[in-house]
Amino acid sequence: MSERGILVILSGPSGSGKDTVLNRLVEVDSNVKVSVSMTTREKREGEIDGLHYYFVSREYFEKKISENRMLEYAEYAKNYYGTPAEPVDEMLEQGKSVFLKIEVQGAEKIRNRYDDVISIFLIPPSMHVLEARLRGRGTEDEETIQHRLFIAREEIRKAYDYDYVVFNDSVECAVEDIKAIITAEKNKIGRNKKTISEVINNV
Amino acid sequence: MSERGILVILSGPSGSGKDTVLNRLVEVDSNVKVSVSMTTREKREGEIDGLHYYFVSREYFEKKISENRMLEYAEYAKNYYGTPAEPVDEMLEQGKSVFLKIEVQGAEKIRNRYDDVISIFLIPPSMHVLEARLRGRGTEDEETIQHRLFIAREEIRKAYDYDYVVFNDSVECAVEDIKAIITAEKNKIGRNKKTISEVINNV
Repeated sequence: MSERGILVILSGPSGSGKDTVLNRLVEVDSNVKVSVSMTTREKREGEIDGLHYYFVSREYFEKKISENRMLEYAEYAKNYYGTPAEPVDEMLEQGKSVFLKIEVQGAEKIRNRYDDVISIFLIPPSMHVLEARLRGRGTEDEETIQHRLFIAREEIRKAYDYDYVVFNDSVECAVEDIKAIITAEKNKIGRNKKTISEVINNV
Repeated sequence: MSERGILVILSGPSGSGKDTVLNRLVEVDSNVKVSVSMTTREKREGEIDGLHYYFVSREYFEKKISENRMLEYAEYAKNYYGTPAEPVDEMLEQGKSVFLKIEVQGAEKIRNRYDDVISIFLIPPSMHVLEARLRGRGTEDEETIQHRLFIAREEIRKAYDYDYVVFNDSVECAVEDIKAIITAEKNKIGRNKKTISEVINNV
């Protein structure tokens, strides 16, 4: 119905399953695109420019910042990470639903820039499940897992600042919920004023 | 996720297809219930009490009004028509999605009583289609059709007061959109605060 695409922020604690859900969503809905982040860190083996990240120089990244062409960015371990505006705006113009997988901190910056952005917080069904997922990775020691659970608990509290929460009990259900949210948002009165006036005048 | 059901107002001009859409919705989603109106008018042949209307006496209806047990009501041609509160509240308690098929005027009264009600306005895709549907009935003369189109145009302007609009281009698409709206609403942060705090504390 609405011509311009919908911008969607997806956040959630580490282990909530953001990547799995987004990968599946892109598979089942060709209208969904996921924004690719830009970074100044070195490309690792197997990473593809434009797919995993846009790998750019520090100079280029700072130029984009100064031109106000980064939707949000942060510096970790002396490298910049952020969301470039151009690809997002292009995809929105094409009517795509554009997903930004970003941290809670970045979400606030996006909200200030796009007043019609919607935000979804992905929640693992319980801390037990989150713990099992973190352990399932087999890459972290006990102290790290306990620390991550503490962080996750703090992060889940931030869900209250989001428009929607989706419980990632199963990937398929989470994907269906997110698809429903996009459909519902497209039916919001605010996105349909032009079409309604066309219906009224089409006599 | 949320335990209490969702109350949904469905409005739309005559000929927008409210009954067809609701009948189909009830068929495909067993969690959807449609509120039955109460009236003091005489039962017509083929009408079933509790299915088409609750047929009651004027005295009974006025008692319900005085007890504030009517969600909305109006008097047409010396008969009362309205929505009794008890069945709606019961179905909401059972976690059902309860649909009220009411006029634009009644919708305002419901909004004042239930702050978490959502409202959907059903729109025929164009006035041409609405005209065709009205003519298709074969029950109205030209003057009546022109009058109904005038009324419809005025009524569609009221869509701006609703939360969502659904374009009834096809019954199946309209039903899918409404189902998506219900799912999305169940994922709204406001309806999930209790569950989130359970997730945080479930350690």
